Amino acid sequence: MEKIKVAIVGYGNVGRFALEALEAAEDMECAGIVRRNANAEGFPELQKYKVVSDIRELGKVDVAILATPSRKVEENALKYLALGISTVDSFDIHTKILDLRSTLAPVAREHGAVSVISAGWDPGSDSVVRTLMEGLAPKGLTYTNFGPGRSMGHSVAVRAIEGVRDALSMTIPVGTGIHRRMVYVELEPGADFAKVEQAIKNDAYFVNDETHVMQVESVDALNDVGHGVNLVRKGVSGKTHNQLLEFNMKINNPALTGQVLVLCARAAMRQAPGCYTMIEIPVIDLLPGDREDLIRHLV
Amino acid sequence: MEKIKVAIVGYGNVGRFALEALEAAEDMECAGIVRRNANAEGFPELQKYKVVSDIRELGKVDVAILATPSRKVEENALKYLALGISTVDSFDIHTKILDLRSTLAPVAREHGAVSVISAGWDPGSDSVVRTLMEGLAPKGLTYTNFGPGRSMGHSVAVRAIEGVRDALSMTIPVGTGIHRRMVYVELEPGADFAKVEQAIKNDAYFVNDETHVMQVESVDALNDVGHGVNLVRKGVSGKTHNQLLEFNMKINNPALTGQVLVLCARAAMRQAPGCYTMIEIPVIDLLPGDREDLIRHLV
Repeated sequence: MEKIKVAIVGYGNVGRFALEALEAAEDMECAGIVRRNANAEGFPELQKYKVVSDIRELGKVDVAILATPSRKVEENALKYLALGISTVDSFDIHTKILDLRSTLAPVAREHGAVSVISAGWDPGSDSVVRTLMEGLAPKGLTYTNFGPGRSMGHSVAVRAIEGVRDALSMTIPVGTGIHRRMVYVELEPGADFAKVEQAIKNDAYFVNDETHVMQVESVDALNDVGHGVNLVRKGVSGKTHNQLLEFNMKINNPALTGQVLVLCARAAMRQAPGCYTMIEIPVIDLLPGDREDLIRHLV
Repeated sequence: MEKIKVAIVGYGNVGRFALEALEAAEDMECAGIVRRNANAEGFPELQKYKVVSDIRELGKVDVAILATPSRKVEENALKYLALGISTVDSFDIHTKILDLRSTLAPVAREHGAVSVISAGWDPGSDSVVRTLMEGLAPKGLTYTNFGPGRSMGHSVAVRAIEGVRDALSMTIPVGTGIHRRMVYVELEPGADFAKVEQAIKNDAYFVNDETHVMQVESVDALNDVGHGVNLVRKGVSGKTHNQLLEFNMKINNPALTGQVLVLCARAAMRQAPGCYTMIEIPVIDLLPGDREDLIRHLV
């Protein structure tokens, strides 16, 4: 059977883990890496792959995994879809997912390609669980409790504050979808901690949450990509109350994101042309192997 | 918008809860109940519905929910599919699901109908979670731990033993997919408890499990339809080990089964003709309402 040819666009943290997931998938192969500077220096694991700045140098590519920041997804996806190459991304700006879907869908259809968007763990696999839970108990409340784990968005916001050399914002779940922010900052010489602390607490990212700021010698010394989620729903099935549903994960964050991107690259090969979020794709399409074997094994 | 017309075939425990779920669903309506004896006596909630012995007396029916024992599913499904009526069942004999799918698929396709099989919580919604988890961590082990809750199959096996008037077998999870059986028996006058206990422990249903048998005055006094599951997977995403995934439910068993049947009756309206297990259906198709609203709300 011919393997699915997948290119990885961007080679940061998520791109590296997507390559590992790709290498672990027997039905897929890495067609190459696309980087702005077409450079494999510093990455011994890339020696066996083509590293290019233009995907067209890679020959046939079935799917491009966009391991780029969310703000770069639309531009890249439009470019590859127009070449008839399917795309997968982990676009995570929840409020803009529908817009992205509307923009990519007609281009994907026009070129006979598939785009799977917001394919990470949240949005992504958590979305599948949230949707299933809402079905199982149509009336009720769902809470998504993240962490403990790093919030990239919050950490970046702190790094932008004057006097901050490096920062880490940990998301701590306190239940019912409420989160505490534990912020660790490494200051520039001469910076005033009290002023930095106040600036963080006034920032839009933090102003509504319980926020604690601590000064540390080295933010790097705290680096751990572990993350987690606790998704709970209590609700009503039919007319029966008190149905209790819960989904928990404790995971390496970029490793899971890379894995989900690879699952959705596979699923992209099995959908009609168009743009999809994960809740629009049957979960069986995420897995390799014979469908009847999967049904026998998993149903 | 026209409501989906759903008939309920069989009116035992699951049929009653399926009706409640149907009544709670704004986009669906109950077209009537099909019972062998076409009798609503003893069920005041059925006064407002047609109760018939032949589904053709109900006029237009989009989907028939087969709330019958698993061994009756194939016969009923074939009959309704041949009439062009889609079917949903909660067939739960894990080893025969593929056979049922193979038998129903061509008939469904021939008559432009859809059959969703094994649509309960296990098999069913748990299958969706198992499949998703296997994707998130392709290498590793999944354990499905059931209970505490009644096992119908085990209870029926005990009732068939001589000297047993009524019986309840509780499934107790002891982890890693291993279960303890707590069996409560009400004996016929003059029956020998020691002999009954030995017969239970030698029965094929129990011989491989830790089994405790207790004599009680009234099995009915122990009746509780609560059940649960703890589905765990520990595995590898890409090349990263120790990814920890878990799904838990504490639920009213027939209420959840009835709800899942109704979700899949809705989903049946959205699939191409054929036969499907739940892992082959996008979870978004289980829910009512506008797709874009669902994506905005759940992804």
